[in-house]
Amino acid sequence: MMKHYLLAPGPTPIPPAVLQAMAQPIIHHRTPEYEALFAEVRQDLRRLFQCRNEVLMFAASGTGAMEAAIVNTLSPGDAVLVVRGGKFGERWAEICEAYGLRVISVDVPYGKSVDPAAVAAALAHAPAVAAVFATHSETSTGAVHDIQGIAAAVRRTPAILVVDAITSLGVVDLPMDAWGVDIVVAGSQKALMLPPGLAFAAVSDKAWARVPSARLPRFYFSFTAEKKAIEKNQSAYTPAVSLVVGLRESLHLILAEGLPAVFARHDRLARATRAGVQALGLELFAEHPGAACTAVKAPTGIEGGAIFKGMRARGITIAGGQGSMRGKIFRIAHMGYVADFDVLTALAGLELVLGDLGYPVERGASLRAAEEVLGHQERGEA
Amino acid sequence: MMKHYLLAPGPTPIPPAVLQAMAQPIIHHRTPEYEALFAEVRQDLRRLFQCRNEVLMFAASGTGAMEAAIVNTLSPGDAVLVVRGGKFGERWAEICEAYGLRVISVDVPYGKSVDPAAVAAALAHAPAVAAVFATHSETSTGAVHDIQGIAAAVRRTPAILVVDAITSLGVVDLPMDAWGVDIVVAGSQKALMLPPGLAFAAVSDKAWARVPSARLPRFYFSFTAEKKAIEKNQSAYTPAVSLVVGLRESLHLILAEGLPAVFARHDRLARATRAGVQALGLELFAEHPGAACTAVKAPTGIEGGAIFKGMRARGITIAGGQGSMRGKIFRIAHMGYVADFDVLTALAGLELVLGDLGYPVERGASLRAAEEVLGHQERGEA
Repeated sequence: MMKHYLLAPGPTPIPPAVLQAMAQPIIHHRTPEYEALFAEVRQDLRRLFQCRNEVLMFAASGTGAMEAAIVNTLSPGDAVLVVRGGKFGERWAEICEAYGLRVISVDVPYGKSVDPAAVAAALAHAPAVAAVFATHSETSTGAVHDIQGIAAAVRRTPAILVVDAITSLGVVDLPMDAWGVDIVVAGSQKALMLPPGLAFAAVSDKAWARVPSARLPRFYFSFTAEKKAIEKNQSAYTPAVSLVVGLRESLHLILAEGLPAVFARHDRLARATRAGVQALGLELFAEHPGAACTAVKAPTGIEGGAIFKGMRARGITIAGGQGSMRGKIFRIAHMGYVADFDVLTALAGLELVLGDLGYPVERGASLRAAEEVLGHQERGEA
Repeated sequence: MMKHYLLAPGPTPIPPAVLQAMAQPIIHHRTPEYEALFAEVRQDLRRLFQCRNEVLMFAASGTGAMEAAIVNTLSPGDAVLVVRGGKFGERWAEICEAYGLRVISVDVPYGKSVDPAAVAAALAHAPAVAAVFATHSETSTGAVHDIQGIAAAVRRTPAILVVDAITSLGVVDLPMDAWGVDIVVAGSQKALMLPPGLAFAAVSDKAWARVPSARLPRFYFSFTAEKKAIEKNQSAYTPAVSLVVGLRESLHLILAEGLPAVFARHDRLARATRAGVQALGLELFAEHPGAACTAVKAPTGIEGGAIFKGMRARGITIAGGQGSMRGKIFRIAHMGYVADFDVLTALAGLELVLGDLGYPVERGASLRAAEEVLGHQERGEA
């Protein structure tokens, strides 16, 4: 018997109630039944995104919504500013380049978070920038970026701010209307606790004002087509019905817990994980680690991939490093349908695996440190 | 108690084994477990598409794969020929126009099928055409087009032939390599018996030769990125994991039944449906009706929508007419996880609903006619 534990940064574990909802016989989407379901989902999505406007939904993975944000708001040759601090920051630049935009990069080393003043300075030097692209939670490094600070810099300019919140929505607070973020992009397989295959884009009035004059070509990812359909509780093209059925359940779970409690839970799990790995003498990779995923440097002499593989052999799926980080870091995600004891499972597995690999481990040390965090929280001591 | 019967042209009913497979705890896609699953799916997809090359897969609905076929093979300003005989033929033209292509249309009235000689003649008049777009089974009208004949005309030219097989793959024979079709596009929610959210494109060598010089912009739908990933049993971006898990099961079911038997079953169900509605004095809408879906003219004085709604009130979901066909036709689908008695259910429902609407019905007439077809088949009398 091999029991499996999933602590990778997406797909994340799916609650039984969501799996059961999706396992019901499928319904047709051009029916009053689907429309009633979608009307409810629409409303709950706005609460989750903390926005007044509609949240557009696509049958796609998160990258599809990133592309949608670009093609609906920009024209060939437009200058854009991209904050790059990891693989997903780089993806913004890659999509922009594929569409013939002029990319100005604000680069920070992997593991660092951008200083909003650097974004403000870059915008001052390039006033014609039409859009700024940033990553809230950079999954490849575990770093969180100061979106509130970046938004304060961007909202004074004509540029729109587009944020990849794929691993931050429902993990850390992102009040998009209050902060002045123009497009928030998300996916289903992270804190939404669903399988991959749904992507979202919430769009501000400032971003909508761009759409009529944006000349990049688009069809499947057209904001206008989706907005027209959504007003009738429909999608422009066949929606991923079973995932929308699951989405209703996962939104119920999130909103019943309450956003502040959801954010506090993720913060608590992240602090416990950090305390645990640090108690083993390991070093965090991110300077400002986020609550979605903890990236840890592989100790000297041990390949990060060996840790990842050792965990898998014990039934625990975490993630290794991506691209240039391969072998150098490993990543424990604690996002979505994850609770205290799941984090302890990951830490216990880590102790055993590091021991197998010859790293000196005081057994139980990481669990003790994590319990300190979790126990304090229970007594209301933040 | 309301028991539901789904006979609409997608989503179609999902077999219990597929629902159960998708209801298992989700697996991560960057794992040997997913790669083994996908290796099996890759092989089975080639058998289903009857092609030698890889079948590319996207997290999207079918329209996404239609867009993919266009953006990976063409350049701005290219001339293309589009066969339009319904809503989905029109969609090819709409996507091509959104991408700045010069569209030459070969139009046939709704309900008719194109004469391949008309395609050959149009190609002779426009020798610079880079691609021909056709629809195998036009879901909006129930008509099937002669793809073999069109392919024979196109393969003599430099143009590639791109076929929307969204409601024909796994319904009627489409040996793409043998006929010389260059791109076959399909979706998950039709004969594949899955929820919507996976789209496919099988690509011939002639179409692949276009990709390096095709200048339309693309990122999420990049053939090159998917091909590179698929060789490692991966996807370029996060795949719709739960649907791929279901896909393995549905491909097992289809290939265990055997493609010839699957096609024969769809043909039998379609003939039984046609015999049934004709026994009620109703008229078929398509001149060459396909095996996926039977479109029927609403009888004089009865609005098609009333039939559709009456069926829904009795628990049976069929489809009405789309666009200009709204109210004029209704459509009974018999595709995917559908068997003899499902067709009889639809016909019995239709008799009751037509009776309610004041149409003179001889009760049982359509069932008798359909049973004649189904019974003959059982005794091997085609």
